[in-house]
Amino acid sequence: MNIAFIGLGNMGAPMARNLIKAGHQLNLFDLNQSVLAELAQLGGHVAASPKAAAEGAELVITMLPAAAHVRSVWLGEDGVLAGIGRGVPAVDCSTIDPQTAREVAAAAAKHGGVAMADAPVSGGTGGAQAGTLTFMVGASAELFSTLQPVLAQMGRNIVHCGEVGTGQIAKICNNLLLGISMIGVSEAMALGDALGIDTQVLAGIINSSTGRCWSSDTYNPWPGVIETAPASRGYTGGFGAELMLKDLGLATEAARQAHQPVVLGAVAQQLYQAMSQRGEGGKDFSAIVNSYRKPQS
Amino acid sequence: MNIAFIGLGNMGAPMARNLIKAGHQLNLFDLNQSVLAELAQLGGHVAASPKAAAEGAELVITMLPAAAHVRSVWLGEDGVLAGIGRGVPAVDCSTIDPQTAREVAAAAAKHGGVAMADAPVSGGTGGAQAGTLTFMVGASAELFSTLQPVLAQMGRNIVHCGEVGTGQIAKICNNLLLGISMIGVSEAMALGDALGIDTQVLAGIINSSTGRCWSSDTYNPWPGVIETAPASRGYTGGFGAELMLKDLGLATEAARQAHQPVVLGAVAQQLYQAMSQRGEGGKDFSAIVNSYRKPQS
Amino acid sequence: MNIAFIGLGNMGAPMARNLIKAGHQLNLFDLNQSVLAELAQLGGHVAASPKAAAEGAELVITMLPAAAHVRSVWLGEDGVLAGIGRGVPAVDCSTIDPQTAREVAAAAAKHGGVAMADAPVSGGTGGAQAGTLTFMVGASAELFSTLQPVLAQMGRNIVHCGEVGTGQIAKICNNLLLGISMIGVSEAMALGDALGIDTQVLAGIINSSTGRCWSSDTYNPWPGVIETAPASRGYTGGFGAELMLKDLGLATEAARQAHQPVVLGAVAQQLYQAMSQRGEGGKDFSAIVNSYRKPQS
Amino acid sequence: MNIAFIGLGNMGAPMARNLIKAGHQLNLFDLNQSVLAELAQLGGHVAASPKAAAEGAELVITMLPAAAHVRSVWLGEDGVLAGIGRGVPAVDCSTIDPQTAREVAAAAAKHGGVAMADAPVSGGTGGAQAGTLTFMVGASAELFSTLQPVLAQMGRNIVHCGEVGTGQIAKICNNLLLGISMIGVSEAMALGDALGIDTQVLAGIINSSTGRCWSSDTYNPWPGVIETAPASRGYTGGFGAELMLKDLGLATEAARQAHQPVVLGAVAQQLYQAMSQRGEGGKDFSAIVNSYRKPQS
Repeated sequence: MNIAFIGLGNMGAPMARNLIKAGHQLNLFDLNQSVLAELAQLGGHVAASPKAAAEGAELVITMLPAAAHVRSVWLGEDGVLAGIGRGVPAVDCSTIDPQTAREVAAAAAKHGGVAMADAPVSGGTGGAQAGTLTFMVGASAELFSTLQPVLAQMGRNIVHCGEVGTGQIAKICNNLLLGISMIGVSEAMALGDALGIDTQVLAGIINSSTGRCWSSDTYNPWPGVIETAPASRGYTGGFGAELMLKDLGLATEAARQAHQPVVLGAVAQQLYQAMSQRGEGGKDFSAIVNSYRKPQS
Repeated sequence: MNIAFIGLGNMGAPMARNLIKAGHQLNLFDLNQSVLAELAQLGGHVAASPKAAAEGAELVITMLPAAAHVRSVWLGEDGVLAGIGRGVPAVDCSTIDPQTAREVAAAAAKHGGVAMADAPVSGGTGGAQAGTLTFMVGASAELFSTLQPVLAQMGRNIVHCGEVGTGQIAKICNNLLLGISMIGVSEAMALGDALGIDTQVLAGIINSSTGRCWSSDTYNPWPGVIETAPASRGYTGGFGAELMLKDLGLATEAARQAHQPVVLGAVAQQLYQAMSQRGEGGKDFSAIVNSYRKPQS
Repeated sequence: MNIAFIGLGNMGAPMARNLIKAGHQLNLFDLNQSVLAELAQLGGHVAASPKAAAEGAELVITMLPAAAHVRSVWLGEDGVLAGIGRGVPAVDCSTIDPQTAREVAAAAAKHGGVAMADAPVSGGTGGAQAGTLTFMVGASAELFSTLQPVLAQMGRNIVHCGEVGTGQIAKICNNLLLGISMIGVSEAMALGDALGIDTQVLAGIINSSTGRCWSSDTYNPWPGVIETAPASRGYTGGFGAELMLKDLGLATEAARQAHQPVVLGAVAQQLYQAMSQRGEGGKDFSAIVNSYRKPQS
Repeated sequence: MNIAFIGLGNMGAPMARNLIKAGHQLNLFDLNQSVLAELAQLGGHVAASPKAAAEGAELVITMLPAAAHVRSVWLGEDGVLAGIGRGVPAVDCSTIDPQTAREVAAAAAKHGGVAMADAPVSGGTGGAQAGTLTFMVGASAELFSTLQPVLAQMGRNIVHCGEVGTGQIAKICNNLLLGISMIGVSEAMALGDALGIDTQVLAGIINSSTGRCWSSDTYNPWPGVIETAPASRGYTGGFGAELMLKDLGLATEAARQAHQPVVLGAVAQQLYQAMSQRGEGGKDFSAIVNSYRKPQS
């Protein structure tokens, strides 16, 4: 299949590599020349613009940092819509606000019947390399069945969430809850420690009781509780606090527009923001637990 | 075994009933005469005071509403310590603050070498009747092995948490997290609904992703998502919001004494308090989701 | 003076009227034809576009609902910058984010040396009509002294806050604090009432003590405490909760961009948002106190 | 007048000194022998117990750290009520929960018709020494007029708040608001600074606008804004964060008992608690602003 792939950062580059490995012909675009050179060596074609990449492609995939990039790559003068063929399927894998996802998809539909999905991912750079990402897909049933086999070459769980925009909604709602849960676990563990219970024992009780959650049983923020969690390796190499902050920002902004209160979500956002202000935004988000502990000597 | 059982409310009465069924001889005390009469018919002996109940008993169990009752039943003039024999094991199953648990146990140890454990339960009145409670036990290893077989006649999971007081700590830390998680799920579900994703689909995604937690996959607050959850039967018959409020009060008070911040826990407490002020404290605690939804017509 | 005035809503129209009264010649633009017709009768000239209004003007003033309008009115094809003369002073009185204010001013400076200030107001529609607004002005010292006499024909306090953008910063910081204070007063008054102190007495004590603030001594949210406050007339006719919500949205968004935590500000925003969700966003923002009171029969 | 004065700590000792200076005969009790010796040199009589101090006194005044001390000093075996004469007026100046104040007063009334008031103070040790305290008095009108002249020898503002207990209510409601306002000002100032406005200018604008409050115009937490504020002398010598924490603890606990939500108050308490956990509880409470600033090098 001839696929245009635009946006080759920490996530996009390994995703594109997996598609090349799966035998597809890729038209690539990014501002970073070195990653283009590297992927060209694997057989990708380098295009001069999003428009040029989209020309002749049977499928267009984008993976970009934020809504402004999505607007410009799709709607700009040399953007995808200027080059894409009539009725060609397309999917944006960026994590952005649902409103922009819907607006760009509407523009695509208007412009030559392009059927566009949103499909933000979870699983991090590790999942992108291993091809084990989860894709949360907002698309018509028809478009979903077209995209599913290709996405499955980059990920393990390909979930249909509803019409376009619902992929973004699913992701920000899940991550809103994740951001809250992680702080909830941090408060429970730190309180238990301060009151004098062994933290391993406490985690064991929580994990077989009603406090059970992914943030406790898989990714516990207390060092040593879960050997494979970032907390057990100095809070490195997981889901950075800045990324959590980005997703909580999307969630509270979408909530604001919908006049929907999200009280704990807003507090959680501020607590990660304080962590970021202290210069610790590069650590795994579970390092929020350190906000609850006396400075360790 | 000759067991003194003091405190025969909604939890204590069915627990005592299970011990009588298991063949023990019970000395009973409560202020409520009708429950005493009922248990006497099953073979229990009615005592005139906690002291009288404790006299001659080989084990003393108490199950009381709050710390003030525990102090008075154990330390009062006609209290347990005035009647209990030297070295008799004892366990308080009330949910109270860890500090009081430790102080009463210290008084018991001083007074005639009584070894006393704290063992708050989870599982509600249903678990008390069915004998499927979880006991979180704070006790020495020796006392734990003495108590374990008897507690197992009233419950399914008998967990050793550490020395006396740690049973209470485990319970309030777990319920602190539970109270937060339930609000986190409520915010995520209500936001998803407001933004236009199907709530069944959203719950499915959360439950197989990083937002996964007991409050979502077992006790989801959105009506219809989990058929067996209180949300699917009008928020009746589960864990009442007033009980959650009691446990969050214990958690934030213990945190205050330990100079340990619990930011989300404190906000959660206030949100359940607002629910209580509106007269909805008798509903299951998952009804907190209604604070996040437009008034349903 | 020949002044272009663009944006003639609830605030802009009475401001323009005061300038006409003061003897200026106004070039007017708005999408609302009836307000244009009304102001034309007072002597204003109706222009066909922002560009047309700006042509020949010695000063350009805009008063618009949000940042998107400011961008489009200034930077659009038929926008102000397409018509304004070289070096003409200009001021935007809209309440928007400081970033947009700075960007539009930079574009104006680049485009023909237009010196542009931001000057958001406080004082509401009453102040606009009476000519008693406060203007918080971000401008160079030179531009400030040019603008000051004209702004003084629409307002009473003309405050120089620093370079362009600082007018917006001053306004959102003040209103962040105002939104928090009003909830703080609401909590203190409601708690006092629930505990049994007379609310008039409590307000009197607060107002002569360390809790003293504008939200208590001038605009107290408890009915009857301040005769002239909206609380004493059914929460009508003041500063609507939706406007407070807009300003808190600007503050938390600016804070997000600056990685600056604003914990109480974020919680306050959510509490007003819950008020808005309940359909009470049209009331004065001091009606937030009702979130803290038992439903009044 | 023959006055019993019990509790001679940082506040009580200078208050007693002012009464001695005013010509009263004092019967003194405290556990600290050195302060007793010092006051004896000024003419005070040292008593062996609260009971002994109260015997023969025409007025009893207590000034104690917390509710437990108040209960024990008044209701204990050698307590005030065991020694006080029938109908003697009495006043407790401690800051405690309103419930305890009412209960002890009820016990006093029952026991020989003692009319007891609560009269917590504000003004700190400086005010105690200078005799410029504010007394918030909960008492019957008759008792208030009896106490007023004596209190006026220790303070400047003697405010009648209503029946017994309302003094405590007034104090905790005011300090709830104060704790919130101070954080509100801290967030506004730190946000303004981060966005680039001069903090002196910002404070000036706030202080003449709707954000105006004691925490900003008299006690601004930003160094250099108010020369006489603790912020301008390294956050020393004011109202310590631990004291604010105590009062917020009383407020949230009273709110819990009344089922009255205080959302911002609860968050404020946690933020001061985090400050305390970091070991900064000894600083003036306005140092909370440092939680909002990047670490200063």
